[in-house]
Amino acid sequence: MSKSPEEEHPQKAFGWAARDASGILSPFNFSRRANGDDDVTVKILYCGICHADLHYVKNEFGHSSYPLVPGHKITGIVTAVGPKVEQRAVSTFNAIDHDGTRTYGGYSDIIVVNQHYVIRFPNSLPLDKGTPLLCAGITVYSPMKYYGLCGPGTRLGVVGLGGLGHVAVKFAKAFGMKVTVISTSPSKGKEAIERLGADSFLVSSDSEQMKAAMGTLDGILDTVSAFHPISPLIDLLTTNGKLILLGAPEKPLELSVFPLLMGRKLVGGSGIGGMREIQEMMDFAGAHNISADIEIIPMDYVNTALDRLARGDVRYRFVIDVGTTLTA
Amino acid sequence: MSKSPEEEHPQKAFGWAARDASGILSPFNFSRRANGDDDVTVKILYCGICHADLHYVKNEFGHSSYPLVPGHKITGIVTAVGPKVEQRAVSTFNAIDHDGTRTYGGYSDIIVVNQHYVIRFPNSLPLDKGTPLLCAGITVYSPMKYYGLCGPGTRLGVVGLGGLGHVAVKFAKAFGMKVTVISTSPSKGKEAIERLGADSFLVSSDSEQMKAAMGTLDGILDTVSAFHPISPLIDLLTTNGKLILLGAPEKPLELSVFPLLMGRKLVGGSGIGGMREIQEMMDFAGAHNISADIEIIPMDYVNTALDRLARGDVRYRFVIDVGTTLTA
Repeated sequence: MSKSPEEEHPQKAFGWAARDASGILSPFNFSRRANGDDDVTVKILYCGICHADLHYVKNEFGHSSYPLVPGHKITGIVTAVGPKVEQRAVSTFNAIDHDGTRTYGGYSDIIVVNQHYVIRFPNSLPLDKGTPLLCAGITVYSPMKYYGLCGPGTRLGVVGLGGLGHVAVKFAKAFGMKVTVISTSPSKGKEAIERLGADSFLVSSDSEQMKAAMGTLDGILDTVSAFHPISPLIDLLTTNGKLILLGAPEKPLELSVFPLLMGRKLVGGSGIGGMREIQEMMDFAGAHNISADIEIIPMDYVNTALDRLARGDVRYRFVIDVGTTLTA
Repeated sequence: MSKSPEEEHPQKAFGWAARDASGILSPFNFSRRANGDDDVTVKILYCGICHADLHYVKNEFGHSSYPLVPGHKITGIVTAVGPKVEQRAVSTFNAIDHDGTRTYGGYSDIIVVNQHYVIRFPNSLPLDKGTPLLCAGITVYSPMKYYGLCGPGTRLGVVGLGGLGHVAVKFAKAFGMKVTVISTSPSKGKEAIERLGADSFLVSSDSEQMKAAMGTLDGILDTVSAFHPISPLIDLLTTNGKLILLGAPEKPLELSVFPLLMGRKLVGGSGIGGMREIQEMMDFAGAHNISADIEIIPMDYVNTALDRLARGDVRYRFVIDVGTTLTA
């Protein structure tokens, strides 16, 4: 018989957990493993909220296991350090750890982590606004580097101005690129150019605008998760242009091959990035004062925040102030 | 009033032309421009037959202009050379030349070409078997180089064993790659491995074989022009794997995005290559004794050859022996 979450480990922990697919979170007592030779224990200060959290608490991927403490964008203070290092890969929550017990995420007071999975946070970066970079930041930074879309003067399109898109614009500008934001919402033009510093703005439903911009972009980061036509985006690319998909629509997209052949264009995918690159991205963000635009919330606002996130009502990321608002 | 094809230029020429969309070719008297400062005149010895020729003689792209002399894979002997060089880009046939007259292709005795578009043929390569490389060779060589699929030990898949595919296997082996041929026809396995030197063979309709090979290829050159599912091919790729499409199905392909994100895979396109790279490819072919498998035919067999090509009945390319069989 397995022990209860409260009893299976020696370190007491406390967080908020979903109990079933209703997705409602409530306070939850559990435990963390003792700090091992290869571990660090972190007192959690901030935890970002991500769409993945929403999918998991509502069991939308069909493999959620309750009670489920979400949260994988975690910042805090190291309180214990073990003497050794080794490699492993276990999801932050809803996974089985190496010792056979379940993992619980960052909507909680402490976490014990193999030190390989710990990032040094740049001093110059605010901890709250920097937290979402651990997911949104690396998701846009990694493909810029891998696909060579990071040189000064490179003409980059960013499709969708949300959690990923707004951070993509900031990194792209820090790399010295010329940035065009492409959106279905004309209302986002002012925000894109005046506040985020994009160089231009295209309304994707405006066929005249799209036609005039054909062949003008070296690359495009497409952050949209819903099904959408990609041919008009491929048309925006110059010869050897690259369309990088960061969102995964459930339905397959339609890919017209002839334009790829004629322009030696490619459609690539990318998802997050490795630990070394996350550290590099955070250091770059620190050096260039890049952080996410966030709405900081107390722990007990989490269910409202998840509701609002489901409706797209956040600009651009929720971050839970775990350090001062999580109380037993 | 425009002059007749026979009268508009000073150099007499003779070839075979389609007169209408029936696609039947017959002898045709026309003329070529005088050899200009930037031109070379070539006495044509061999001309390869390509699917594009077939599409054009039957007006399948809808913009054929008759009389039409096809042929863009041309080898021969330079008989006149002008003193200067400049750049231009005009299709070998069915196009309007810089002087406003129509261009006629290589199913003919001579051709006048700007010297920028002339390739030095390696001494070690047979002229007849080397001719198809000018199209099929560069179409597979260029993406190997551009997408970095040319290192020793790189695991390359080649989908479809036809005019492009059989040449792709030869180049890949010369680069030292491990080559897997993927085909719908189990009967091609022996040919692929025993004669062309591929390392392994997969029948794409055999789901057991395809499953066992998942995640084993660094890249795939897909030479198939008909509509076909690409998800099983993407599954064959390892992390960072590249599926390169060389054929353009009329219908859009279905692109499932999630596997691209998880494996940072890409789907790219490529079509032929530039002059500098064609010379590089021919020199490489000469150094490694790479040539195409051809069936050499006399000029007056051309209509039968086009019929057979339309049915896929050629292993793997027709080449017209223009030099000895074209007679007025």
